[in-house]
Amino acid sequence: MSNTKYVKVLAPGTVANLVCGFDVLGMCINEPNDVMEVTMLDTKEIIIKSADGYPLPLDPAMNTAGAPLIEMINEVGGNVGFEVIIHKKIKPGSGIGSSAASAAGATVAANHLLGNRFSKEDMVRFAMFGEKVASGVKHADNVAPCIYGGITLIRGIHPLDIVSIPSPDLFVTVVHPQIEVKTSDARQILRKEVKLKDAIKQWGNIAGLVAGFIQNDLPLISRSLEDVIIEPVRSILIPGFDDVKRLCKEAGALGGGISGSGPSIFMLSETEATANAVNEVMKDVYNKIGLDYNTYVTTINKTGVKIVDA
Amino acid sequence: MSNTKYVKVLAPGTVANLVCGFDVLGMCINEPNDVMEVTMLDTKEIIIKSADGYPLPLDPAMNTAGAPLIEMINEVGGNVGFEVIIHKKIKPGSGIGSSAASAAGATVAANHLLGNRFSKEDMVRFAMFGEKVASGVKHADNVAPCIYGGITLIRGIHPLDIVSIPSPDLFVTVVHPQIEVKTSDARQILRKEVKLKDAIKQWGNIAGLVAGFIQNDLPLISRSLEDVIIEPVRSILIPGFDDVKRLCKEAGALGGGISGSGPSIFMLSETEATANAVNEVMKDVYNKIGLDYNTYVTTINKTGVKIVDA
Repeated sequence: MSNTKYVKVLAPGTVANLVCGFDVLGMCINEPNDVMEVTMLDTKEIIIKSADGYPLPLDPAMNTAGAPLIEMINEVGGNVGFEVIIHKKIKPGSGIGSSAASAAGATVAANHLLGNRFSKEDMVRFAMFGEKVASGVKHADNVAPCIYGGITLIRGIHPLDIVSIPSPDLFVTVVHPQIEVKTSDARQILRKEVKLKDAIKQWGNIAGLVAGFIQNDLPLISRSLEDVIIEPVRSILIPGFDDVKRLCKEAGALGGGISGSGPSIFMLSETEATANAVNEVMKDVYNKIGLDYNTYVTTINKTGVKIVDA
Repeated sequence: MSNTKYVKVLAPGTVANLVCGFDVLGMCINEPNDVMEVTMLDTKEIIIKSADGYPLPLDPAMNTAGAPLIEMINEVGGNVGFEVIIHKKIKPGSGIGSSAASAAGATVAANHLLGNRFSKEDMVRFAMFGEKVASGVKHADNVAPCIYGGITLIRGIHPLDIVSIPSPDLFVTVVHPQIEVKTSDARQILRKEVKLKDAIKQWGNIAGLVAGFIQNDLPLISRSLEDVIIEPVRSILIPGFDDVKRLCKEAGALGGGISGSGPSIFMLSETEATANAVNEVMKDVYNKIGLDYNTYVTTINKTGVKIVDA
């Protein structure tokens, strides 16, 4: 297979919201990753294959990797298409950006095969069509960090306004308790109105969090990782949440909370040793509850989707 | 008069809220300033004098400069007191931190005479007693920038959490139309609940504004200077507001809005030439309306209350 026709990428998980940044902040992490193999075709079609028998929708218009590519080949025009083989490693419904990884991975891979003709912002625009397939709503708080890497602020999506937020090299521990929380359910239980005084607290916190990231102020990051609006409502869907949060902070985590709409929970730590201690705490909580889980000890992924074989 | 017993300070105006940072952001400016002369006494008393006959409350407990000093001498103990002569240059009710200037100016001056025994955070704590006298509520979004200088985030006041936000050297134009807007009225017309989707937009904007200030990203600052919650309600109390805002941006201002609870309006500009053009636009609007006004073309004050004679 020619170099210019085939590419293999690692499409990483992402943590949306980052506690006090509901719908506007996201962070890319180094583990887990989907593996995606994309081949350029000289026919105008999108072919989706699941490498490992994982039951993904194979109709490209209904697939989170397919929908962005349909938009892309329509914009490119001519006889160009892609075959996408998905090795689905990030479980759908985990809350760590499974749909975004497929959407962003396919988009970055296809763009690479097209000679990088599209900007990162364009790629986010395409990838959001995958999110629409997954959740019914175009949103960028997973696809943006997945494509840009690091921590991103999505100030708006009409028009798209993505800002990379520099951050210290923190460690990230994630636990995915094996229960299902549907994004649509997690959204539905939120109140449409919030108290002004809570909103003020929240925007004080996001301002502190962004300042803490950019200025490498770990105590400020820690103090600002507080969510007085979404977490109190959503956390009731996640067994063990309060214990995980309290015990992880006692173990030295800077802080953390629900990853995206859950059920995964993430924690930030300054050192790998703390991130490992936090991992043990998380395992302990879910062992006691008797709920299956996966955990990951990883770091902030500063580059986003990575080309590993081209 | 001995050097150690007398000090004269410039207590600068401040712009609270900074459009999208209601109740949590504030900025210190170089003009206008109250001038305050403070003398240390060897009796436990606070004496307040108005230098220019401006009708200030002379009962120290009812005076914004007096109330902080009462707290301070109680905390210091012993036979220490202060006489404060206030040259009131910042008009009360202007929305550019008149009460904060008196409170912060007196506090910094007295602390200087006490050999700087209190931290900046302590001084904010004292100065907030002055704000309580003025508006019935302890708040720090004027006194914090007045004492710290520059732009400050007040992430919380229970406990006090003040974060200095570095910023580029921007120019500031302020117009004070001579109408009265009481802080208590301006607060009362706000709804106690806000739409979640508006709150999300607001915290996206404050995150963008803080990132823009720290990273010197002027287009990002400009895009983020948007308030979808407070300004639409409060601006109806300020004649000419919409015209001022639109025409100043057309004249090149990065953006701006209501200063504090109004009626003053401020605009940020990259250059002095633009700040002067903005000044002409503001004058024009209020000349046409036929409303008296003051304007100031100034810069961000990075140092806060300044000792000019000690």
